[in-house]
Amino acid sequence: MFITLEGPDGSGKSMQIPALAEFIRSQGYEVLTTREPGGTNIGDQIRQVIMKLGNTSMHPRTEILLFCAARAQIVEEVLRPALQRGVVVISDRYADSTLAYQGYGHGVDLEELTRLLKFTTGGLRPDLTLLLDVDAETGLRRRQTSGGEWNRLDAYALSFHKRVREGYHQLAAAEPERWRTIDASQAPEMVQSCIQDVVRQALAAHPQ
Amino acid sequence: MFITLEGPDGSGKSMQIPALAEFIRSQGYEVLTTREPGGTNIGDQIRQVIMKLGNTSMHPRTEILLFCAARAQIVEEVLRPALQRGVVVISDRYADSTLAYQGYGHGVDLEELTRLLKFTTGGLRPDLTLLLDVDAETGLRRRQTSGGEWNRLDAYALSFHKRVREGYHQLAAAEPERWRTIDASQAPEMVQSCIQDVVRQALAAHPQ
Repeated sequence: MFITLEGPDGSGKSMQIPALAEFIRSQGYEVLTTREPGGTNIGDQIRQVIMKLGNTSMHPRTEILLFCAARAQIVEEVLRPALQRGVVVISDRYADSTLAYQGYGHGVDLEELTRLLKFTTGGLRPDLTLLLDVDAETGLRRRQTSGGEWNRLDAYALSFHKRVREGYHQLAAAEPERWRTIDASQAPEMVQSCIQDVVRQALAAHPQ
Repeated sequence: MFITLEGPDGSGKSMQIPALAEFIRSQGYEVLTTREPGGTNIGDQIRQVIMKLGNTSMHPRTEILLFCAARAQIVEEVLRPALQRGVVVISDRYADSTLAYQGYGHGVDLEELTRLLKFTTGGLRPDLTLLLDVDAETGLRRRQTSGGEWNRLDAYALSFHKRVREGYHQLAAAEPERWRTIDASQAPEMVQSCIQDVVRQALAAHPQ
């Protein structure tokens, strides 16, 4: 089963994933966690180009294609082989991030992006996507006080993050059978409890 | 005016471009020549990932997307601004190479590639594309410096390059107003003369 976590930086995805992985292991499954971009040697090299502070002249389409290149690599090198072995894969972000950030956030044509993502992933789609939903102000505030590195992507305005959040809501509404929205403004242990409830049901419905 | 040169390695493109640039300058135009991938700071970083010897596990779709990322950057950072200033741009290969090599040569879906290239270039298309046409055997022979006997790998390479050449012919036939096919099996000075005839007419028809 392929599970993805989506939501703004500051929504707590990275914090929640280790506990979720441990929970799924406790249910008797083998688990693999990955993060985008990166997750492969080639993907990490691409990630360095994307994140480099000096690359201020990077065009939005260049950035999208770099994210897609890293994703194409992890799909074929890691995700598809693991899923074929029956492993439960948890990815911190996946194709929906491109739709939310570049599509809804930056206004890149959603239909073009959808076709590009289909090419990128070779059609590999998540079975379950958890949206850790938090308002844009809270997400930005958490990120700025968590001591994480400030990178080029953080520099975009609050209005951008509001469009991203609205995009996530629209994506979730369009495919309710795949998406589960979780209130990530709650205390972390409450968020974890909600995640476990959703994943327990999904595992029961998707026997490996 | 945006001019691209296409054709197999061994067709003499790189050799012809400096003389062509000089000819166009002699007609009173400013000229810029570029080569893919690279041509920008960000493109050079991407080229390093593509070319790195250790990256043997790179998936074909990853490679295509990295070439596209570098191309998107050069289009927006270099080509489009130069064309808007009235410069004549000559590119050694452009989007048609991806169709010929990855599409016709390696069998990647042509419709998917065409859409990907449209996204990549933001719709920037050459005004004139010169196909330096040479049969696959001659192209391969010109590239071989050792002059050894043909082996099984050469036979594989030959069938691939025959598909690439056939692909170029189909692309040229589909857009006869943009493509001019030049017999590159002729002596280099004859090829140059044919190129100049074609470009002289094109410059007259596309006043800057």
